[in-house]
Amino acid sequence: MPPFSPALVTDLYELTMVQAYFAEGFAGEAVFSLFVRRLPPRRNYLVACGLEDVLAFLETFRFDDAALKYLDSLGRFSAPFLRFLERLRFTGDVYAVPEGTPVFANEPILEIVAPIAEAQLFETFVINQVHLQTLVASKASRIVEAAGRRQVVDFGLRRVHGVDAGLKAARAFHIAGVHATSNVAAGQAYGLRLAGTMAHSYIQAHDDEYAAFRSFARLYPDTVLLVDTYDTLDGVRKVIDLAKALGREFRVSAVRLDSGDLRDLSMQTRRLLDDAGLHSVGIFVSGNLDEEGIAGLIRAGAPIDGFGIGTEMGVSADAPTLDFVYKLVAYEGRGRIKLSPGKSVLPGRKQVYRVERDGVAAHDLLARDDERASGRPLRRKMMEKGTRVADAHASLDAARHLREIEVNRLPDRVRALPPADPPYAVEISAPLAEAAERLRQQYARPRPAPAPPR
Amino acid sequence: MPPFSPALVTDLYELTMVQAYFAEGFAGEAVFSLFVRRLPPRRNYLVACGLEDVLAFLETFRFDDAALKYLDSLGRFSAPFLRFLERLRFTGDVYAVPEGTPVFANEPILEIVAPIAEAQLFETFVINQVHLQTLVASKASRIVEAAGRRQVVDFGLRRVHGVDAGLKAARAFHIAGVHATSNVAAGQAYGLRLAGTMAHSYIQAHDDEYAAFRSFARLYPDTVLLVDTYDTLDGVRKVIDLAKALGREFRVSAVRLDSGDLRDLSMQTRRLLDDAGLHSVGIFVSGNLDEEGIAGLIRAGAPIDGFGIGTEMGVSADAPTLDFVYKLVAYEGRGRIKLSPGKSVLPGRKQVYRVERDGVAAHDLLARDDERASGRPLRRKMMEKGTRVADAHASLDAARHLREIEVNRLPDRVRALPPADPPYAVEISAPLAEAAERLRQQYARPRPAPAPPR
Repeated sequence: MPPFSPALVTDLYELTMVQAYFAEGFAGEAVFSLFVRRLPPRRNYLVACGLEDVLAFLETFRFDDAALKYLDSLGRFSAPFLRFLERLRFTGDVYAVPEGTPVFANEPILEIVAPIAEAQLFETFVINQVHLQTLVASKASRIVEAAGRRQVVDFGLRRVHGVDAGLKAARAFHIAGVHATSNVAAGQAYGLRLAGTMAHSYIQAHDDEYAAFRSFARLYPDTVLLVDTYDTLDGVRKVIDLAKALGREFRVSAVRLDSGDLRDLSMQTRRLLDDAGLHSVGIFVSGNLDEEGIAGLIRAGAPIDGFGIGTEMGVSADAPTLDFVYKLVAYEGRGRIKLSPGKSVLPGRKQVYRVERDGVAAHDLLARDDERASGRPLRRKMMEKGTRVADAHASLDAARHLREIEVNRLPDRVRALPPADPPYAVEISAPLAEAAERLRQQYARPRPAPAPPR
Repeated sequence: MPPFSPALVTDLYELTMVQAYFAEGFAGEAVFSLFVRRLPPRRNYLVACGLEDVLAFLETFRFDDAALKYLDSLGRFSAPFLRFLERLRFTGDVYAVPEGTPVFANEPILEIVAPIAEAQLFETFVINQVHLQTLVASKASRIVEAAGRRQVVDFGLRRVHGVDAGLKAARAFHIAGVHATSNVAAGQAYGLRLAGTMAHSYIQAHDDEYAAFRSFARLYPDTVLLVDTYDTLDGVRKVIDLAKALGREFRVSAVRLDSGDLRDLSMQTRRLLDDAGLHSVGIFVSGNLDEEGIAGLIRAGAPIDGFGIGTEMGVSADAPTLDFVYKLVAYEGRGRIKLSPGKSVLPGRKQVYRVERDGVAAHDLLARDDERASGRPLRRKMMEKGTRVADAHASLDAARHLREIEVNRLPDRVRALPPADPPYAVEISAPLAEAAERLRQQYARPRPAPAPPR
């Protein structure tokens, strides 16, 4: 990546607005709420993800010299304001649901309570990171559920959108229950389990497919051999030939099918392998599969032991964005709303309660933070006055475990792939609805003509 | 981002295959070709982009100590192989079409000619970067063409997939003809023009919309005011009030509409502004627009002067991936192919010729590199023995200029938004087709039973 200052990963208008707040003396406490307005048609729930990067960013935030110099060069920012930025650190509080929690439309994943300049400034980065990671964790959760007990491996690095997405997606996939990743940098950065087989180019570089298999298995005895470079079943027969030749030294763990009709080919492959007594050699498939493709293969009885999933999971191809927004919901202790058509906002800090019956989630309740409501509260304080609270250091494995437990508690129709009918309900508490209505009436009322400018 | 070694932005199997090549003494020259198998339904052409990052990566490539230490910890790599990696640098040649060039299915955007270990190792990174940047440049080119003389501004940072994508997309958008970006880090990294207006939160933080407009215009006299927080036309009337109050000091350049029926609202807004004599105040719109939305508004006569485009352009939402592959096409001077269903490969190094009549592209010809063919060759040598050739340092503005010229030379049906009928033709030369057929027969022929293992 070209050199850039992390603090400048923001939209220009955040900085111009913050300069205006500075010039106007606006330094009151603001509450910003991050939530999704609506779920994509093929998502019954989302898996919250990305909090860790937000907290790490806020903890270490500062404008470095290069950033200040660049901003100065733009000719839009005053010297006093640049000095203000130089000293700016995040001093606010953060409330959030833990990573791995299933969430629904309108539920705040994260709330920032801070002087308005700070809370405004971080909008772009906060959305960017939570959007990406929640997007791909949510897609991966469907894929993991579809695969059931079969392993899912992330092969997405080549088609995800850039290097940052590659790393963050591998991390989000781990939280969603994916078994391993092919991304070596993600293994290094997060300690994730790595996996990989071989590419067609390795086979092609050899004059003979059998020779390629033999050489690779000599170096990596328990490897997975890719059999579809020329003719899939012919490739499988060469693996069987290799087993015969190696005898008890043969330890190849699986063959990989990457093209063609995976149902038919996996069945024929299984038969060939079983007829040769190679019951312990598994079948691993890849090639533009998504959760529907996986479910279809399993329903059809395809004898598949694992799935390598790339493009579809890495970019959440059927729904490559979520409608995340980060909205001002209170300033100086008073609730704020918007009335733009289709873009209204509920005021103030909020808690999300999950109401369960017999261990299964019945509905959620979105309530004012100062209410008492029944149900299990999902949102917690993660940062206080710019410092993480003790239990905000969840491990990746803890988040993975949380997702598994929490998704298991969702109703079957919500966990399933087809659109949930009815969708999971998020109710709004009476006090919250009343607060919204009061503000709506106040702002929709025709106001008197403006006072003349000073 | 968490700490990681750039050299490890690769799939594990690249490293295991390279260790196998190393163990087998495979050090011959390989040719890998990067191309797209087919275009998405709503793309008549792609705009090649991402070469600069590939060249910069290859020029500076090395395994740092942290990378070697991590690889050693995996227990899969031998000490001699890790010493080989420690010394590994890119020593090969790179051929490519310049950034900004329109390309079509099966045309090599980039070819790497290098010892097989090097060429194999870079597969993942090369695809990752060229895929992302070509994807978003191609989408942006459609948006820029749809907007015609009206300016397009990139507002995508919050919804693109991560920080790397935000930077690279802003760069690709510049090449595609986008006017400016809101991404401050991209401005810093690439010297791009920045633009931005204000967010709803700024309006909401003030008790009164008029007071917000007045304060912002005082600090930024030629700003764009966002008018749809409560009621769009009411917001426009407040801008007119402000103009009356400020008199000749009023210099607001535009209003921004971000919700509702943009056609009706822009017409009513224009009428209100014109009736108040504010002919110089433009109308800027945003809110989930894509090229079809832009074209529809323009066709309907909406008096819009500029478009802020975020999500749809930033993730190429209608086609969030391209079918890019990086394939071995020759090893040790001999062509290599694949026969996997739907995934065949043409052998050897290739040149792309654009055949033009009266200054308009008629078709392309894909030919062997050692052929002579008529037409304009698009592919050039960019790197020789690991070092960039002199004219491989194209500026961003040169690439932007090239895209404009080259897209202007495409037939109207290919430049237009609907699917080109017939699609632009890419013909294959007789010598190239013959070479492919020879190899196909050779590999499809049943081969003798394998020799027993040594």
